[in-house]
Amino acid sequence: MKRIILASAMMAVGIVAMAQQALWGIPQLKSPEVNADNTVTFRLLAPDAKEVKVTGDFLPTEKVRTDVGEFDMPGSATLTKGENGMWEFTTTSPLSPELYGYSFIVDGFRTVDPGNVFVIRDISTLTNVFLIEGDQADLYKVADVPHGTVSKVWYDSPQLGMKRRLTVYTPAGYETSGKRYPVLYLLHGMGGDENAWSELGRATQILDNLIAAGKAEPMIVVMPNGNAAMEAAPGESSLGFTQPTPNLPKTMDGSYESSFPEIVDFIDSNYRTKRDKGSRAIAGLSMGGYHSLHISKEYPDMYDYVGLFSAAIFPNKGVKSPIYDDMEGKLAVQFAKSPKLYWIAIGDKDFLYESNKEYRKLLDNKGFKYVYRESPDGHIWKNWRIYLSEFLPQLFK
Amino acid sequence: MKRIILASAMMAVGIVAMAQQALWGIPQLKSPEVNADNTVTFRLLAPDAKEVKVTGDFLPTEKVRTDVGEFDMPGSATLTKGENGMWEFTTTSPLSPELYGYSFIVDGFRTVDPGNVFVIRDISTLTNVFLIEGDQADLYKVADVPHGTVSKVWYDSPQLGMKRRLTVYTPAGYETSGKRYPVLYLLHGMGGDENAWSELGRATQILDNLIAAGKAEPMIVVMPNGNAAMEAAPGESSLGFTQPTPNLPKTMDGSYESSFPEIVDFIDSNYRTKRDKGSRAIAGLSMGGYHSLHISKEYPDMYDYVGLFSAAIFPNKGVKSPIYDDMEGKLAVQFAKSPKLYWIAIGDKDFLYESNKEYRKLLDNKGFKYVYRESPDGHIWKNWRIYLSEFLPQLFK
Repeated sequence: MKRIILASAMMAVGIVAMAQQALWGIPQLKSPEVNADNTVTFRLLAPDAKEVKVTGDFLPTEKVRTDVGEFDMPGSATLTKGENGMWEFTTTSPLSPELYGYSFIVDGFRTVDPGNVFVIRDISTLTNVFLIEGDQADLYKVADVPHGTVSKVWYDSPQLGMKRRLTVYTPAGYETSGKRYPVLYLLHGMGGDENAWSELGRATQILDNLIAAGKAEPMIVVMPNGNAAMEAAPGESSLGFTQPTPNLPKTMDGSYESSFPEIVDFIDSNYRTKRDKGSRAIAGLSMGGYHSLHISKEYPDMYDYVGLFSAAIFPNKGVKSPIYDDMEGKLAVQFAKSPKLYWIAIGDKDFLYESNKEYRKLLDNKGFKYVYRESPDGHIWKNWRIYLSEFLPQLFK
Repeated sequence: MKRIILASAMMAVGIVAMAQQALWGIPQLKSPEVNADNTVTFRLLAPDAKEVKVTGDFLPTEKVRTDVGEFDMPGSATLTKGENGMWEFTTTSPLSPELYGYSFIVDGFRTVDPGNVFVIRDISTLTNVFLIEGDQADLYKVADVPHGTVSKVWYDSPQLGMKRRLTVYTPAGYETSGKRYPVLYLLHGMGGDENAWSELGRATQILDNLIAAGKAEPMIVVMPNGNAAMEAAPGESSLGFTQPTPNLPKTMDGSYESSFPEIVDFIDSNYRTKRDKGSRAIAGLSMGGYHSLHISKEYPDMYDYVGLFSAAIFPNKGVKSPIYDDMEGKLAVQFAKSPKLYWIAIGDKDFLYESNKEYRKLLDNKGFKYVYRESPDGHIWKNWRIYLSEFLPQLFK
């Protein structure tokens, strides 16, 4: 055997990969770099660029006026060109612990940081991410604790006329414990899908860490796809690689809420679940909060724990569905059965703040009991991760 | 209730998403566009760019000379600037069915296509993907067939001193059938991880489609992480968002092969597996082929089906491990037990072609029976997807 020749060939496996990178022009630089004081440095090698900016949720928001109103949008900062075409920007102050998203804007077009392969898709945008550790953000890390299993599972929906995919978290030890577990149904917002909570939401890490610390009960968490016209997340359905759009049909017209029992039946048939009301929770963000509200009142004997995170509340004008008929009457039935927890959380800058205030006023007037949590900031993932971290420890106690 | 105000607020949910896109400068263009004749058009809005190229595996390769030899690298094509700063390129001829990867090079730096959110990470590079349907590529689509479940599962490795993650495919119906299934262990190459086969390899779709067509037996497929020093894929382990590098310690030094029985024990303890030799297969690409070769000969009573896809063969010079001792003697024991299939596949342009030829000569000289499959092209995912599609129907018959 010509061992020397073969050994050289083997070494080449690694070298090809490196050569490809060198040849394909990937800069050997660190971006982003979290410095010792928690300031962060962004770098981009772009010798021919005229202007490089970074935009992201670590920067102060800017008011932006559009045809449909004024919105708080992530601000931007300009990188400085240094030697050899290297652009750089360091935040002026340390960042507080959080999972942040950012993008570069190079001569006017928005792009990912080629120095950072970690991206998360939010609707039709890819965003780079980085984590500043500490405080609540330590729950978002993969720690050295027992890990649950995250599965992508398909179920049959005769009512929606298609096979549909959902994400299921089973807690560490599920496979061999022989035990039954309570179930949280955790719903995403408009433009999201069955991947949103486990990716942007860091739900897997939050669950692993809270359960390991004894702060949350071991539970099954089901993250379905709340777009009734959609089989699965973009790129993972029979539509193939079709570019996603934020506005989808059949998202808030009652279709999803009325098909929801199919999901519960599927989970109860395929997992070792506890099947009493006291062992079921439902919660969601934005559109998922809306779904949680309407599903929990439609089926008042199903869910003892309800979480509305920055929730949309009332159906849009003109939307007709039996699901939305007699909202106050159904709420009266639901609250007469004294759910163990009805938790409403919203940021003080959320564009849904006023409708939540209106809803709380309705609940107050009727004497329906709920717990209210108000946080800073608006309609953003930072808040939803915090709400999930606070909601989980209150379940199934 | 102020229904009109609330309705407006709800509509804004979608509008914010759209406004963000408009404000963040995401061009409303289609890229890539697969035209009716299977030519493909790439577009980029970059008014200030001086030069825009596209590089990808749909273009003819170019010979590139480096310090360590000459390599075939993906070629590039230049986009033409049109009105309003829109750059465009259409392939000169139709592309044959395949999953292709590509990137843009804008004024010298490589970046993803902002018009296409579908990216796959290969080692430390993000690459956009698109699919041309037809022929073997139809196996790579999500079709309207029963779908298996794909799970990310952690197991404990006392031997490697850490919790480690693997990907498990269970076929449609597994959850409720009560049946036991045969198991294929499917291993990735250098720089890859437990996500590689299910993402770049399209293993989930290939399995769903072949099983639904009755061309492959329903089976469990285990895709572990073959880097013995690594807990899980980059970004999904306790290292956090640490930029991956292609060269890792403890990848081909015997550590992984000798710890492999831990994985088999875990799978047999947690899944309804058939546990006889005739119900176990092991296969891998490149480094994973090397692992398959050495694991299958080390445990000659374990695997009746072995697949070496563009495999590395011999240990590097100077590498010492009991796993690699007496290679020919162990092969003699393995082949004396007549494995049902020993399948060697490689591309005629693969840089490991010569070492595979050397290995086949050794097997021939000893009269060890194997099946040989030679394909065009080199050390690329296109070949590995084809090999998997051809290997699966031969298993567990």
